[in-house]
Amino acid sequence: MKIVSTIAQLKSIIHQAKTEGKSIGLVPTMGYLHEGHLALATTAKKENDLVVMSIFVNPTQFGPNEDFESYPRDLERDTQQAESVGVDIIFAPSVQEMYPEDGGISISAGRQAKLLCGATRPGHFDGVIQVVTKLFHIVEPTRAYFGQKDAQQVAIIQTLVRDFNFPLEIRTLPIVREKDGLAKSSRNVYLTQQERMEAPAIYEALLVAQEEFLEKGDRAVAIGLARKHIANHTSGEIDYIELLSYPDLKVVTNDTKNFLLAAAVYIGKTRLIDNIIFSLEGETANV
Amino acid sequence: MKIVSTIAQLKSIIHQAKTEGKSIGLVPTMGYLHEGHLALATTAKKENDLVVMSIFVNPTQFGPNEDFESYPRDLERDTQQAESVGVDIIFAPSVQEMYPEDGGISISAGRQAKLLCGATRPGHFDGVIQVVTKLFHIVEPTRAYFGQKDAQQVAIIQTLVRDFNFPLEIRTLPIVREKDGLAKSSRNVYLTQQERMEAPAIYEALLVAQEEFLEKGDRAVAIGLARKHIANHTSGEIDYIELLSYPDLKVVTNDTKNFLLAAAVYIGKTRLIDNIIFSLEGETANV
Repeated sequence: MKIVSTIAQLKSIIHQAKTEGKSIGLVPTMGYLHEGHLALATTAKKENDLVVMSIFVNPTQFGPNEDFESYPRDLERDTQQAESVGVDIIFAPSVQEMYPEDGGISISAGRQAKLLCGATRPGHFDGVIQVVTKLFHIVEPTRAYFGQKDAQQVAIIQTLVRDFNFPLEIRTLPIVREKDGLAKSSRNVYLTQQERMEAPAIYEALLVAQEEFLEKGDRAVAIGLARKHIANHTSGEIDYIELLSYPDLKVVTNDTKNFLLAAAVYIGKTRLIDNIIFSLEGETANV
Repeated sequence: MKIVSTIAQLKSIIHQAKTEGKSIGLVPTMGYLHEGHLALATTAKKENDLVVMSIFVNPTQFGPNEDFESYPRDLERDTQQAESVGVDIIFAPSVQEMYPEDGGISISAGRQAKLLCGATRPGHFDGVIQVVTKLFHIVEPTRAYFGQKDAQQVAIIQTLVRDFNFPLEIRTLPIVREKDGLAKSSRNVYLTQQERMEAPAIYEALLVAQEEFLEKGDRAVAIGLARKHIANHTSGEIDYIELLSYPDLKVVTNDTKNFLLAAAVYIGKTRLIDNIIFSLEGETANV
């Protein structure tokens, strides 16, 4: 495995791989890897000749009062874990390497970014698609891998790829969970022991709401039950719990086929997100 | 030569060419070809294994009161001319093919687009970089060819490619002129005989201003002379005459190395643009 920190060096490796007709899998991450990231890399390894994992805490997707500075970083541990699942190249650039100049061109995520996490984190998804666009152009992947945990992010990136004709395939893989159901997240490290014990209630609440909605079909009642579950089982504060169509993120109607049931909850100071994507048959839908 | 109207068909040809290790030259046009376009294609042919010329009058770069509907079109003549200079593929999609859906993601050209043509045509350069981004992703060119006549467009596209790491090279070629100096333009066809006789005064005015600036170094005086020349020799109305640094399009200072002297003038109802890019040594600068 190689660790590369400059765009020029990475492009030279990519150029060589392309010349040899190799397929390239890209796993974009902000590092501090957990089993969710490793599952993406494992699948990327199965499906491609060369796997590039980017590790870059992207400043442009953090708001001024968010955790960019304190976001957990551990490149050494990440490197070992990435190597263990067969990653070929780690791309770990500096902020200066990724953003040396700013000519003022901006990309804006639009309607899909105005709700859910986008309502609480204005500009977040603009930063996401900015860095994703750059990574797509630098790595020129055949396939890029994202976790369903960031379901809204996946929906927006799918729109980006569709509407701007990026020559690659987006692959989305299911959420990886702890044994007690808590979605794996780099931010779980922020939790105190007490908070960690409360955190699985987020997923439980989503399951309660899903069951209610599949049975009775009433969105408001389902969300109400989820809110109640979180209030009863945590000391946390709900940012949102919402049920929308997926991947277009619109109000649910009788014609909606795939549903996104998503929540963001502050457990202590840590904002955790989770979701379930499902169809009326109750199965997890393909995203 | 092949004429292709769907993205799917073009991508299949591109995929084949890439597999064979061929370099690809892209010449993006709005059709109604003149010698300027053909010079781009001729150079593209010399420098690449496969030349794709897109012919697409892009609605998103026209304002509501501009000439999108009446913009001259003649695909048959364009086809013959493109073939005569060795274009391999003409990509002539419909508007529906290029913009089937709108997920709300937008790209905005920023500071460089607020002045010169951008001041008169708000949104124009946003539309340009939208369609150029799509074309770059569809064609995946090794090199893309643009004429210096649209100097501001070239500057903005260079910023786009630099700041978003597009894996391609922008090649810019000099303005091709009629014998009397008028810059070749698809819009010249709009001119009446009288207007056509007046139109070369735009380039003459730029030459007068360039000479004055190189001699005395006073931007305002140079521009004043150009304005006077146009007033004296045409019935037209000046949109702008400006001298800026190039390609960053900033106010000229003592440190400025490359200069853009640019004009837009309404001759009758037809808005014509022209420019000279030069260094203090007076030569045409490489752009």
